[in-house]
Amino acid sequence: MLFEKIKSPGLAHISYLIGDGSEAVVIDPRRDIDIYLEKAVEAGYKITKVFETHRNEDYIVGSNELKVKTGAEIWHADRMLDYQYGKAVEDGQEFKVGSLKFKAMHTPGHTPGSMSYLLYGYEGEPWMVFTGDALFAGDVGRIDFLGEENLEKTGSWLYDSIFNKILPLGDEVILCPAHGAGSVCASAISDREWTTLGIEKKLNPKLQVKNKEEFINLVGEMLEYPPYFKNMEESNLTRQELLANYQQPAALSAAQFTEAMEDDNTYIIDVRTEVSYASAHLPGSISIPLQNLPSFVGWFIPTGARILLVTEGEYPKEAIKHLYRTGYDNILGYLGGGIIKWHMTGRNSEAINTVTVDKLCKLLDNDSDDWFILDIRSEDELEEEGEIKYAEHIHLTQLPENYNQLPKNKPIYIFCGSGLRSMTAASLLKNAGYTNQWVVLGGLTAWNSTTCPVVNHQ
Amino acid sequence: MLFEKIKSPGLAHISYLIGDGSEAVVIDPRRDIDIYLEKAVEAGYKITKVFETHRNEDYIVGSNELKVKTGAEIWHADRMLDYQYGKAVEDGQEFKVGSLKFKAMHTPGHTPGSMSYLLYGYEGEPWMVFTGDALFAGDVGRIDFLGEENLEKTGSWLYDSIFNKILPLGDEVILCPAHGAGSVCASAISDREWTTLGIEKKLNPKLQVKNKEEFINLVGEMLEYPPYFKNMEESNLTRQELLANYQQPAALSAAQFTEAMEDDNTYIIDVRTEVSYASAHLPGSISIPLQNLPSFVGWFIPTGARILLVTEGEYPKEAIKHLYRTGYDNILGYLGGGIIKWHMTGRNSEAINTVTVDKLCKLLDNDSDDWFILDIRSEDELEEEGEIKYAEHIHLTQLPENYNQLPKNKPIYIFCGSGLRSMTAASLLKNAGYTNQWVVLGGLTAWNSTTCPVVNHQ
Amino acid sequence: MLFEKIKSPGLAHISYLIGDGSEAVVIDPRRDIDIYLEKAVEAGYKITKVFETHRNEDYIVGSNELKVKTGAEIWHADRMLDYQYGKAVEDGQEFKVGSLKFKAMHTPGHTPGSMSYLLYGYEGEPWMVFTGDALFAGDVGRIDFLGEENLEKTGSWLYDSIFNKILPLGDEVILCPAHGAGSVCASAISDREWTTLGIEKKLNPKLQVKNKEEFINLVGEMLEYPPYFKNMEESNLTRQELLANYQQPAALSAAQFTEAMEDDNTYIIDVRTEVSYASAHLPGSISIPLQNLPSFVGWFIPTGARILLVTEGEYPKEAIKHLYRTGYDNILGYLGGGIIKWHMTGRNSEAINTVTVDKLCKLLDNDSDDWFILDIRSEDELEEEGEIKYAEHIHLTQLPENYNQLPKNKPIYIFCGSGLRSMTAASLLKNAGYTNQWVVLGGLTAWNSTTCPVVNHQ
Amino acid sequence: MLFEKIKSPGLAHISYLIGDGSEAVVIDPRRDIDIYLEKAVEAGYKITKVFETHRNEDYIVGSNELKVKTGAEIWHADRMLDYQYGKAVEDGQEFKVGSLKFKAMHTPGHTPGSMSYLLYGYEGEPWMVFTGDALFAGDVGRIDFLGEENLEKTGSWLYDSIFNKILPLGDEVILCPAHGAGSVCASAISDREWTTLGIEKKLNPKLQVKNKEEFINLVGEMLEYPPYFKNMEESNLTRQELLANYQQPAALSAAQFTEAMEDDNTYIIDVRTEVSYASAHLPGSISIPLQNLPSFVGWFIPTGARILLVTEGEYPKEAIKHLYRTGYDNILGYLGGGIIKWHMTGRNSEAINTVTVDKLCKLLDNDSDDWFILDIRSEDELEEEGEIKYAEHIHLTQLPENYNQLPKNKPIYIFCGSGLRSMTAASLLKNAGYTNQWVVLGGLTAWNSTTCPVVNHQ
Repeated sequence: MLFEKIKSPGLAHISYLIGDGSEAVVIDPRRDIDIYLEKAVEAGYKITKVFETHRNEDYIVGSNELKVKTGAEIWHADRMLDYQYGKAVEDGQEFKVGSLKFKAMHTPGHTPGSMSYLLYGYEGEPWMVFTGDALFAGDVGRIDFLGEENLEKTGSWLYDSIFNKILPLGDEVILCPAHGAGSVCASAISDREWTTLGIEKKLNPKLQVKNKEEFINLVGEMLEYPPYFKNMEESNLTRQELLANYQQPAALSAAQFTEAMEDDNTYIIDVRTEVSYASAHLPGSISIPLQNLPSFVGWFIPTGARILLVTEGEYPKEAIKHLYRTGYDNILGYLGGGIIKWHMTGRNSEAINTVTVDKLCKLLDNDSDDWFILDIRSEDELEEEGEIKYAEHIHLTQLPENYNQLPKNKPIYIFCGSGLRSMTAASLLKNAGYTNQWVVLGGLTAWNSTTCPVVNHQ
Repeated sequence: MLFEKIKSPGLAHISYLIGDGSEAVVIDPRRDIDIYLEKAVEAGYKITKVFETHRNEDYIVGSNELKVKTGAEIWHADRMLDYQYGKAVEDGQEFKVGSLKFKAMHTPGHTPGSMSYLLYGYEGEPWMVFTGDALFAGDVGRIDFLGEENLEKTGSWLYDSIFNKILPLGDEVILCPAHGAGSVCASAISDREWTTLGIEKKLNPKLQVKNKEEFINLVGEMLEYPPYFKNMEESNLTRQELLANYQQPAALSAAQFTEAMEDDNTYIIDVRTEVSYASAHLPGSISIPLQNLPSFVGWFIPTGARILLVTEGEYPKEAIKHLYRTGYDNILGYLGGGIIKWHMTGRNSEAINTVTVDKLCKLLDNDSDDWFILDIRSEDELEEEGEIKYAEHIHLTQLPENYNQLPKNKPIYIFCGSGLRSMTAASLLKNAGYTNQWVVLGGLTAWNSTTCPVVNHQ
Repeated sequence: MLFEKIKSPGLAHISYLIGDGSEAVVIDPRRDIDIYLEKAVEAGYKITKVFETHRNEDYIVGSNELKVKTGAEIWHADRMLDYQYGKAVEDGQEFKVGSLKFKAMHTPGHTPGSMSYLLYGYEGEPWMVFTGDALFAGDVGRIDFLGEENLEKTGSWLYDSIFNKILPLGDEVILCPAHGAGSVCASAISDREWTTLGIEKKLNPKLQVKNKEEFINLVGEMLEYPPYFKNMEESNLTRQELLANYQQPAALSAAQFTEAMEDDNTYIIDVRTEVSYASAHLPGSISIPLQNLPSFVGWFIPTGARILLVTEGEYPKEAIKHLYRTGYDNILGYLGGGIIKWHMTGRNSEAINTVTVDKLCKLLDNDSDDWFILDIRSEDELEEEGEIKYAEHIHLTQLPENYNQLPKNKPIYIFCGSGLRSMTAASLLKNAGYTNQWVVLGGLTAWNSTTCPVVNHQ
Repeated sequence: MLFEKIKSPGLAHISYLIGDGSEAVVIDPRRDIDIYLEKAVEAGYKITKVFETHRNEDYIVGSNELKVKTGAEIWHADRMLDYQYGKAVEDGQEFKVGSLKFKAMHTPGHTPGSMSYLLYGYEGEPWMVFTGDALFAGDVGRIDFLGEENLEKTGSWLYDSIFNKILPLGDEVILCPAHGAGSVCASAISDREWTTLGIEKKLNPKLQVKNKEEFINLVGEMLEYPPYFKNMEESNLTRQELLANYQQPAALSAAQFTEAMEDDNTYIIDVRTEVSYASAHLPGSISIPLQNLPSFVGWFIPTGARILLVTEGEYPKEAIKHLYRTGYDNILGYLGGGIIKWHMTGRNSEAINTVTVDKLCKLLDNDSDDWFILDIRSEDELEEEGEIKYAEHIHLTQLPENYNQLPKNKPIYIFCGSGLRSMTAASLLKNAGYTNQWVVLGGLTAWNSTTCPVVNHQ
């Protein structure tokens, strides 16, 4: 038997490759499908089916890529949608894979046509359930895609899906969701690599409710909706362009890079660490450190943009994967040799101010009118990790629409959890004309580790 | 500076990746281009040009694949031909690559429009010359493609190319040919990994001539022409299908394999060792051990055939590469799990007789009318390694047209150098209805290591 | 959090690498520890502890290797034993690893001092339990190491360990045993990659008992004890030699190989497929196809033997790993280039007869006195897959002590499940002087797929 | 035939693996020998001999490591030295390797007992010559190790070695030296990946001399001698500790790192880029960007020091290799997660000022008394790339002994070629108490690309 859990970092997406006998299925494949092909081939399996748990909104699904390379059948969920290829699965439909059997279960809530796939073991008993975005470790799927007016309906669906269909499968059944901690598809997925329905019943905060009403109250909230979701939703109905047909983004010299920058629809993304960017970066570039690229590119870079990348000099292999997974297909290249080569041509770079918490603490020891503290963390983080006195809160994703709340005539000290997102904020502010923004290195985690006389946790 | 020599085993094809500054060129790329992309990317180069030394006849060139993935310019040789894409290079044309310079030199002979590319070093002096199939280590390119009637003309061209253009570049210039030992593009390329014009002048047997006439006499011979060459020649004028668009050949169960075998245009190639095949093989399969696949598939499998592969059970990664390189694109799959799985379904297999030289020697100690010795080595091998008394010679490639020379009523003992090709011959004979053929294990090399009273070297 | 399940094929051994914060532990490491080092380093963890579940008897534990490369603390189970290094863990002892906690639980039965390690999750609830050889998927650990006279005692221990300590942890707890299907540490581990206590409670045949007595009756059997176990048990108390200090086994020419064969304590193991061996093998060699090497080398090759390997020509990387894992450290080398090179020197090879079931069926259609059918499968297999009429049963591992039961004057047809083990048997018989043994290709699986008039299933 | 050229970046060291038949030799192996073992094994060769061209002074030779893993014979040059193991080769000694032959040639000059190894081809003619540090592409070996008083003698030796022994082998012979561009073993090795004796005769500046006197004048100079050379010279006479016996340097938390920093003999090396270091680095750390580590660690870190590493967070695989190659064996660990984790604990970091040439140019447009320009490039660079008006020159390696030449009361603008070495200089100055040093980003290459009115090239 073949069982592989394939995690895509950043998106915290999890796909599964399950095989028995000589055939294998992939559940919710990502767009770059090499890993499925390799693992199946290595173990002597032929991928014959792809199961989608729902029409995904946060990444481009690899179903069509797999179809081309393996001839696999595609089974879509959300059957009411109009797909360009593949077939839609029905509630209760069963699939043999070697000596194993999958049964599709309609588990709406996250989307109207969401499906879970129940895997029966060799003895015919429920063994594992692949719940897509219905049930996660420590959380449940978001239910706000149909709008605030439908939260009660979608919440009711999800309650029934979880409490009347999934949990009754048995405490001992292994839960295989489509996302791990860090996903935007739920607010608080926990870092529990492996879990079971029984563990979730006991520990998942969203399942500790007395009835449907309480559940709907608890989970019925409108979450942020990154602009690129729209593009993913449309794209996942179609046969997307095969990645093999794209030209490979290449190293560009400083001169070539400069020329490419000139187009209005070109965005420079600097995926280096926050401190590298702080020290020297290309004018007009946006800082999105690599590990944050999947989460934030969809907020700040418009669909269809031409993209240039800045790295420490190395080929941006991971960044390119992240971009393709989220539908940013127009990648022109990267700065060959890194920023040192840029400097060596005599070109100018720019810097962002940084400050450690220890130094900031001393700076803040005076009248609060002289400075402005901007906290760009999410609501959840504010609750969990505490807030800073005097700080104004604007979540990073909302920053571009709220520049007018920020002063231009005094220093802005920017806090996030560590300094990474603050650098993204600082780079956005810079492109918006701000000049006196400071990134607090170590962010709130650092702040919580020190004692500062003036500004305390509330 | 980047200098990579990429060898494709079997075809003994050599391509080159040369870069300077930020750009790189590939000379005579093979069809599976991953290695060029990886090495260029790793070293921070962008492939901007492809140089072909001639319209290749023994493999599918990767120029179009490279164009798609890198946008590189394609420069074809043999400019009189009608290419579907790319441009034809002219004699004397120069190309800057970083601080280096290439100059195209018309060096006809192997083909009418063959080009060599001379690389000048940083000081502007001739450094390396990429001669394609004009000049090899220990040999020169074959000149028989225009037919026997033109040998004098093509020989004269090649003489001028080598003696008046290439050798005058200087003894110290490094020679980079398109083939190494084992290629069918020349009869006797030596196993000299690296060489120079001076070394060739001294050691290459074909260059030890007094004048053009002697040279033409020496090299003006008609060599074998594998049927697939025709297909390669035509294919290399066109944009071939991209490999990325093919479905990946997959593991087939014994039942699926059996079903696929039934089509008339389907050929089963068994790429296992000669002894595995001897012991048990699928009825109707042809033995071409993996290392011999590139050299012999083009002789025995028609262009356009549907192909099934038999391995020891593993994914036939190398075999697939070899087949794609020689234009066999219709690969249906391979026997999943190997022949043991075939047997486990109760299916029958067949065997081929083998004999070691020691045992054979005893067998032959009687009247020669009772047996038939078939030596399937090439003319060159006969000369170099000696012949066996009483043996009949039919080169392996000519076997299918000469079955009528072989007896059906007595044992046929088949010799090659080692036993590998003999097994191919034995499998062909079997498919032609012969039942009493024996492969001599170890072949002539074994024979030459022992003393056999009856049958001696002539 | 880091969670890696490391499987060692053949031994069906499973070890685990679990990390949190910046430190990681390994449970029951194998001797070749590169994979733990790589995975820990890649994820930024430092291995600080090694937990052993018991003093292992089937492989050499890698604890000392890990200690040298990481400085990790070693925690042995079976505390009454006299270890040369490391410390013994106590029942109830707790270990923090980042924010996670492990608790050692004394779960005797398989050995007197066997330990399970319970992993608590972030919320402090039981999450996973690493049961070593106490509880497997579909089976429990063997309890016969203290002898038949102690089966009742060890069975009682194991019953209490499983029913009173492990199962009460909760149906939802994930079970992580030290072996998967195919291990010799239990008779019938199932191919259930992932499981939970609840699933085992429901499906594990050994847990479907009413009380302790029934349990002891069910599991209290004496199983086979491979001779090398003794060596492992002693070796695992000591600091074994580090693998890095061994000379790398190298390719030997036919002449060097021949010379090395001459020593009396030298064994030639041929790890090729059964059909390769059948066709041609070195005189005196034993056939143990690679996938069977870990299971059978310990039966047929004495501890301390000098070993020569025969492969298809490739470096025997996997075979060497298997041998080192089972304490065969004296590996002289392998036949460079494979058996074709052997033949090319004119050396003789030998063959083993094979027959497909279809042909055998016809052969058997006569008086049963003319042939002998030998079935070398295990008792379990006989029960599960059925027996062949007229066949005599001698399990492969018992063959060397039972040659006298086999006739020398008629053909012996050897059956196993597929033909692999039959070839091992045939090679043993050959070394014992038998000349008329036949391996049935496809074995019983093939037999069960066909209809043979004479010899039927009972 | 096997021919592999193994380059070790940084040291610009080149070793060679050459095999024929079934055995292979390594010439001047590096200490981490995995690559030789892998390549030999993959190609089916056994390494049987190691040839050293001289007792190396710039890296630890891997001869003993190879001996342990392969049993190879070690052949040392510089036979008058007292080696702990291996044998010394004699002038004219010949070695068969398969069908090839090597001849040792005494070619003193770089060291008194330097050997070259001449490889004869299959036809018995000189094919390649491995000259160690006698003759390079574009340069010859340094001859100053016996002191200024012996330059005439060593120069005379080298002249004879090159002009009377090596060059007479023939223009067509391929030259395989032990170093490429960037080595400290010669002043000006060229970036000519492959070369021949004829090419060197034509292009190597050191060979364009009329006679021995002119040669001695040209090459007879005292070059810098990094302090670690002494250690290497001694170490290469002995069996060094095997790398396999060292504990693997591990990720340390900020707290563990802080504790480890406290020892007086502990050095923190920050191998990140110059801009990362500029932005935020640990107090007391020295900046040596990774690619410069092999060249500069030996100047600034004492032999035997305890070393802590700072990276962008990744495991410092390459840095560790570089350190082991140069004998820095006491590596305690690296900052796990990178400097962001340091900041997140609330710990302070420090910064270094940087300036682009464009901004600097404006700054310098005033009286030169207000600032100080420090150029830390080598003499050779000054000559080749020009100097900056008003700049003071102190080569980076000489900086620690010349702090007293630098002002404390005004800004010091530091130039190197690109900014990398300037950051090393700036970090050294900081540790020496300087606070107003500025690294010029892009360095002289940038400067040469712009026009600055005040300070020009001389």
